[in-house]
Amino acid sequence: MKPMPKSLYLAAGAYTVSLGTGRPEFNPRKPRPGLEHYIQEAGQASLAQISDPNLIDEGVIGNFMAARFNKQGHLGSLMTIAHPALEGKPMIRVEGACASGGLALATGIKSVLSGLAESVLVMGVEVQNTVKAIYGADILAGAGWYAGERKQGGTYFFPEKFSQRAGAFGAKFGEEKTRGAMAAWYATAVENARLNPLAQEHHNAVKDLMAQGLTPPDGRSFCEHLNLFHCSKVSDGGAAIIVCSKEGYKRLGLKRDDVVKIVGYGHAAANLTVPPPDLTELTTSRKASGLARKMAGISKDDYGVIEVHDCFSITGMLSLEALELVAPGESVELVIAGENKRNGRFPTNTGGGLVGYGHPTGATGVRMAVDLWKQLTGRAGDYQIPLKKEHGIMISMGGNDKTVVSLVVRK
Amino acid sequence: MKPMPKSLYLAAGAYTVSLGTGRPEFNPRKPRPGLEHYIQEAGQASLAQISDPNLIDEGVIGNFMAARFNKQGHLGSLMTIAHPALEGKPMIRVEGACASGGLALATGIKSVLSGLAESVLVMGVEVQNTVKAIYGADILAGAGWYAGERKQGGTYFFPEKFSQRAGAFGAKFGEEKTRGAMAAWYATAVENARLNPLAQEHHNAVKDLMAQGLTPPDGRSFCEHLNLFHCSKVSDGGAAIIVCSKEGYKRLGLKRDDVVKIVGYGHAAANLTVPPPDLTELTTSRKASGLARKMAGISKDDYGVIEVHDCFSITGMLSLEALELVAPGESVELVIAGENKRNGRFPTNTGGGLVGYGHPTGATGVRMAVDLWKQLTGRAGDYQIPLKKEHGIMISMGGNDKTVVSLVVRK
Repeated sequence: MKPMPKSLYLAAGAYTVSLGTGRPEFNPRKPRPGLEHYIQEAGQASLAQISDPNLIDEGVIGNFMAARFNKQGHLGSLMTIAHPALEGKPMIRVEGACASGGLALATGIKSVLSGLAESVLVMGVEVQNTVKAIYGADILAGAGWYAGERKQGGTYFFPEKFSQRAGAFGAKFGEEKTRGAMAAWYATAVENARLNPLAQEHHNAVKDLMAQGLTPPDGRSFCEHLNLFHCSKVSDGGAAIIVCSKEGYKRLGLKRDDVVKIVGYGHAAANLTVPPPDLTELTTSRKASGLARKMAGISKDDYGVIEVHDCFSITGMLSLEALELVAPGESVELVIAGENKRNGRFPTNTGGGLVGYGHPTGATGVRMAVDLWKQLTGRAGDYQIPLKKEHGIMISMGGNDKTVVSLVVRK
Repeated sequence: MKPMPKSLYLAAGAYTVSLGTGRPEFNPRKPRPGLEHYIQEAGQASLAQISDPNLIDEGVIGNFMAARFNKQGHLGSLMTIAHPALEGKPMIRVEGACASGGLALATGIKSVLSGLAESVLVMGVEVQNTVKAIYGADILAGAGWYAGERKQGGTYFFPEKFSQRAGAFGAKFGEEKTRGAMAAWYATAVENARLNPLAQEHHNAVKDLMAQGLTPPDGRSFCEHLNLFHCSKVSDGGAAIIVCSKEGYKRLGLKRDDVVKIVGYGHAAANLTVPPPDLTELTTSRKASGLARKMAGISKDDYGVIEVHDCFSITGMLSLEALELVAPGESVELVIAGENKRNGRFPTNTGGGLVGYGHPTGATGVRMAVDLWKQLTGRAGDYQIPLKKEHGIMISMGGNDKTVVSLVVRK
């Protein structure tokens, strides 16, 4: 594996509130901000951190399903509303289900590596609360093979898919322990979210989070092996960050302390029409994060901060195994021992992750990069952790482990 | 403008039939092939031309609205069904309305320029005949600003937008002459399609095409300044081509005669929420194609073959002006004199274009690149033209001139 062919950096990150149930400002019966609002809020918060927005050469925006949630395509062109300086420049929307944000980062990386751009504004956006959850679940099922597996799926297609993973994992490694670890994952996510004012679960004041997480799943109204607390949130939100060269960040008026270096990158896709080879493993996530780690030339013990795609609690646990932090099945002990907490050996999803912060699908991968950037540049505010190691890694995953982008960054 | 930073080529092009009204095999009441079929047919036809599909490093697929036409997202992952060799590799879907195919080419170009890939399979696909035209028109309106201008638009949103352009153009440069030129555009498109066995209008045997083109528009049931003959078709189809480096095409077992060189590239986006600055001009198309021409270091008289985005006859005419072949307004004389025909000074849309071949939206930009490749490598069969000049140019346009990718290629 060759190293990154050119020095690349992440700069000027920002994301919005994750709006949805749980946020005090959320009222399902009142009009709410649209795509336009989140593009502008996140984009402007990023561009406000640089000397001159005219220095942005290109834009890329990750979005999954605005076509159905908002009847809106063509988001590259819409993205220009973030700032007049974007007018006339190359803009593109990319999509890979819930990995759309990760793909936006990958696209920004390639633009800078290509030599055609020095600084690329990378955004992600999703506004999902336009429909009821039950319709939303069908929309999100477009991340799976709609003409094929969708027909066999239940009402809640993706919860069902990951419930099957939780069931298989429990059968192999112990059902009770697995449920305990999933409950602990939820509790940690909310604890982290309480420190992040933008998180959807920020105001969650429940005392016994473990009891919620341990509530027996109701297979009749929802899923067999997951309850609602194990799910990521239905969210509206946006995120933005700048991918740039060394020359790029200097031109933007930034210092090395303001940016993090992208030292590893991995991207892998698997066949959407074929079931996962092993329900208890995220093989594509393992592949992509392995590629990123090898490009970075580091060991799996070198991560000071981690962002994984916990669309469900079980997915978070499987992601830690895909990162090879522990052997298959051992994420249970890791999470029960709290090693994934802010003060643990593997601080993971420190801003709340998908379960705690929320999951505005197309924005999520970009939000992850922003959280790594925040932690490694000391900008995470109340949820800042004392860094023990200088690298961070993220896994942006789409569908049932079908598209994965992983980045390794360094302080 | 710097030249292309690295030698890039287009290789192994292929596209499918454009299926829809007009094709004898099209029956609106019977089940028809889905996205999967077109991905496999186009992808396999491309990969069959190279020594070993395992040498493909990455894949990119352009698609506009599978989310609504087919309820399917995540097409990067779906694209792996084209060949087992794609499994595990980086795959991405890109979207920019009807410029999605152009953006797929741009993404392939950047991947090869980045040094991360030597050969990228670039595809485009759309399957639109899943809904009635009137619903389809609303889906396609997602290429405009849905939360804004859509609300003012009529039943047929985009036909109405370009009808307004036709009206403004006629008012400025002469209504009758403009209608004559639009009719001639249609007639030429069908004449070209008759030579292309994959074209939707291939079997069109109407004798007096000009009479059809001159049929007065019916503003009550359709648009004020356009009739149905001036529209591109509602189509299902796919296209594929390989973007590669010099090392790339050699590894694929190809010779210089089998490929065309990409010598110019331009990409520009305009604000989706703002009306066009001038209804009689395609300012973004002008900008992007100017960038491509300058990167190629050639003059506007150097094109031996041209592909423009004639989503409507008037758009084709405006595109020739955006290419600066003639001054504003003069496309009328150009088209009436037949200079855009196969044997004219500016052979344009030789395989039928969007009006004659058809317009499977996400595939169209890639299909254009394939047609340029076919003409410049002598593979266009019955519609092969004798080349007078060695360069080709294409304009892939999205929405109302809001996203444009232009490529200049050389024999």
